Amino acid sequence: MQTTRPKPSTAHEPRGELSCRALAMPADTNPMGDIFGGWIMSAMDAAAFMTATKRAEGRVVTVAVSNITFMRPVKVGDAVCCYTEVTRVGSTSITLAVEVWVQRQGHGDRIKVTDAEFTFVAVNDNGRPRQIVDGSGASNGTAAGP
Amino acid sequence: MQTTRPKPSTAHEPRGELSCRALAMPADTNPMGDIFGGWIMSAMDAAAFMTATKRAEGRVVTVAVSNITFMRPVKVGDAVCCYTEVTRVGSTSITLAVEVWVQRQGHGDRIKVTDAEFTFVAVNDNGRPRQIVDGSGASNGTAAGP
Amino acid sequence: MQTTRPKPSTAHEPRGELSCRALAMPADTNPMGDIFGGWIMSAMDAAAFMTATKRAEGRVVTVAVSNITFMRPVKVGDAVCCYTEVTRVGSTSITLAVEVWVQRQGHGDRIKVTDAEFTFVAVNDNGRPRQIVDGSGASNGTAAGP
Amino acid sequence: MQTTRPKPSTAHEPRGELSCRALAMPADTNPMGDIFGGWIMSAMDAAAFMTATKRAEGRVVTVAVSNITFMRPVKVGDAVCCYTEVTRVGSTSITLAVEVWVQRQGHGDRIKVTDAEFTFVAVNDNGRPRQIVDGSGASNGTAAGP
Amino acid sequence: MQTTRPKPSTAHEPRGELSCRALAMPADTNPMGDIFGGWIMSAMDAAAFMTATKRAEGRVVTVAVSNITFMRPVKVGDAVCCYTEVTRVGSTSITLAVEVWVQRQGHGDRIKVTDAEFTFVAVNDNGRPRQIVDGSGASNGTAAGP
Amino acid sequence: MQTTRPKPSTAHEPRGELSCRALAMPADTNPMGDIFGGWIMSAMDAAAFMTATKRAEGRVVTVAVSNITFMRPVKVGDAVCCYTEVTRVGSTSITLAVEVWVQRQGHGDRIKVTDAEFTFVAVNDNGRPRQIVDGSGASNGTAAGP
Repeated sequence: MQTTRPKPSTAHEPRGELSCRALAMPADTNPMGDIFGGWIMSAMDAAAFMTATKRAEGRVVTVAVSNITFMRPVKVGDAVCCYTEVTRVGSTSITLAVEVWVQRQGHGDRIKVTDAEFTFVAVNDNGRPRQIVDGSGASNGTAAGP
Repeated sequence: MQTTRPKPSTAHEPRGELSCRALAMPADTNPMGDIFGGWIMSAMDAAAFMTATKRAEGRVVTVAVSNITFMRPVKVGDAVCCYTEVTRVGSTSITLAVEVWVQRQGHGDRIKVTDAEFTFVAVNDNGRPRQIVDGSGASNGTAAGP
Repeated sequence: MQTTRPKPSTAHEPRGELSCRALAMPADTNPMGDIFGGWIMSAMDAAAFMTATKRAEGRVVTVAVSNITFMRPVKVGDAVCCYTEVTRVGSTSITLAVEVWVQRQGHGDRIKVTDAEFTFVAVNDNGRPRQIVDGSGASNGTAAGP
Repeated sequence: MQTTRPKPSTAHEPRGELSCRALAMPADTNPMGDIFGGWIMSAMDAAAFMTATKRAEGRVVTVAVSNITFMRPVKVGDAVCCYTEVTRVGSTSITLAVEVWVQRQGHGDRIKVTDAEFTFVAVNDNGRPRQIVDGSGASNGTAAGP
Repeated sequence: MQTTRPKPSTAHEPRGELSCRALAMPADTNPMGDIFGGWIMSAMDAAAFMTATKRAEGRVVTVAVSNITFMRPVKVGDAVCCYTEVTRVGSTSITLAVEVWVQRQGHGDRIKVTDAEFTFVAVNDNGRPRQIVDGSGASNGTAAGP
Repeated sequence: MQTTRPKPSTAHEPRGELSCRALAMPADTNPMGDIFGGWIMSAMDAAAFMTATKRAEGRVVTVAVSNITFMRPVKVGDAVCCYTEVTRVGSTSITLAVEVWVQRQGHGDRIKVTDAEFTFVAVNDNGRPRQIVDGSGASNGTAAGP
């Protein structure tokens, strides 16, 4: 998997903007006591969805996810942060890099634990693809905060 | 409630750092279809907990919450952001201002919907109060990011 | 916090009627293994909501919560009981005292763990404040059970 | 099913003590929009568990449930109340009648929607059956409140 | 309970078709650390609902559950399988045998842990009972997959 | 994404064995009212985890997910089935193809809605990679049912 990892693991700074931040709770664990991978993917999907909705100025649907790599486990009590960066805006689609970083037990250094690429399509009220209004492309879409 | 509100509603900027950010989902609604107040209080508690843990450099417990004001409803699809600011650090306790802002349906202007004050006590492994190491007081404790 | 506590901790009887009773489950724990404060606040909100809805004979929304004090932790397996008492009925608003008592592991003496004050506003179908029909005031509104 | 119903549907009063009371939320619905039967059975199990734990003065496990009858649907917004009555105490087992009553939208008359019979066995720390200390039998075990 | 058990415990094969299969997670535990009986009943209800919906070719509601016997505990990490078999099709009702089998920690021999009988009524859009189209009776209704 | 899709969309039969089957509930919806992508990914992760645990005869952890394609939305009331097939067994890793098929509202034809590839590593009690005992490779690992 090393070769498919989009950025070197030596990176010390998250890529993009903070889109989702949550406290990892006991209810989110898998049978081994670590945080369940499905919970992490759900948080990434919500984070990417929020950023894509903002860039597309309306409703989007997830159409693909690729290259999710789980580098290190997430533990109960970790502060879990999902960072998103729009990497490509097509006529109806948006692609984002999503990174998950944690602060172990809420303090100390931040550590990258997971990354992935999400693609969304902008849709109208009938669920049909719609044009995304051009801003200045990807560089416009990364501001995640309200 | 006007008189107890800690800052004027005309403020256009959240106070403090972004500590918790989530997408409001249908599973979080009350019987009227708005986001359940209990869910919002849970998000605020998690946000304040993460910031207090960071400032106290270890385990904390919630001892009091005061002056929660619900100014506007939160809707399904809103991006919900909890901002926290440490306002007082005692020998064993930390007090934080918590504000909740939303972006309706994930885009457009941000709107303040709720605020409150949370107090935590730093505890050791036995649950007994412990001294909080003095940094430079409250001003040190507000960095919420990982 | 002693000074803001609305009633002495020596009280041996809950105040008001039993509005919500639940078993504290592992899914409701925080990273330290105690029941999450957010879960307790959610239970209190639901309890107060049910009593306020009954007194207002219709839809209400939470507008404020004050003076939540967490006196003792709640443990997995505790029987958690929320008691509510209407303390003030205004033309459109209702204020309630809410107390949380537990029976450790479901048996033995009951212990008060949390209390708070909740305020609701009665609203019509459009979410606008509506008049609350006067019964005999607060004394009428406390019967929580069906 | 009429013939197996343990008490006539004309009863206007719940049988036993209030053991569990909750607000029916949108997250608890089935695909038709009514409250999911599995959620109701979970609430009944928790209610019966709390009363059996109290009577057995310690750990119990569910061994059987019989004759659950769903008479009427439960709706979002209903106040859902589970009443329990110990009907038989054996040397190691406890049998309870459980009834579920609702107040539609939290106010108005109460309506019986479900009843069932639960049987528990008292167990020790190793999960082996243990003797139940004799009080005065079933009549002793019904006090559900803390 | 031996006498009411519908089939001998020496059976080595589940009865019917696999209708629901899930991984038992920490969030589903009771205060003793085993999987909560209410969670198991919810899984059985969903399994039986899916099979009954298929046989009735449309909406059904649960009207009764009888003879649930919990033979052995379910543990976190077990693969939990609900098997369903239609045992009777009336003019408007369907009765199913439901069995729960687990594979401890996802591998090794399968073990029967619970069984029960569920009855549903087919309803139209108004919730009124409707006729079930006769296929070839119970033998037709057991195919659970796609 | 067409080129990376492991099998043509014209396939009428799921690939592999049924590993996870669940009823899509209202609590699992996204803000548009369809089933949340994060929930679908969680179900796929649990399904793949169960099959990988079985093939590895013990503990595994998710290390990568690739090529998740969401072809069609999943609706409340759909019977959701995850099929898994082991496609590669390395010395310490297992790769699986996962497909999600639904039966709309629990009856009628089955439709493929999502597929993906999951990779797990077998680990020992310390979380270190361990050798996977060779059976007859991938063909051995597909039996999902207990």
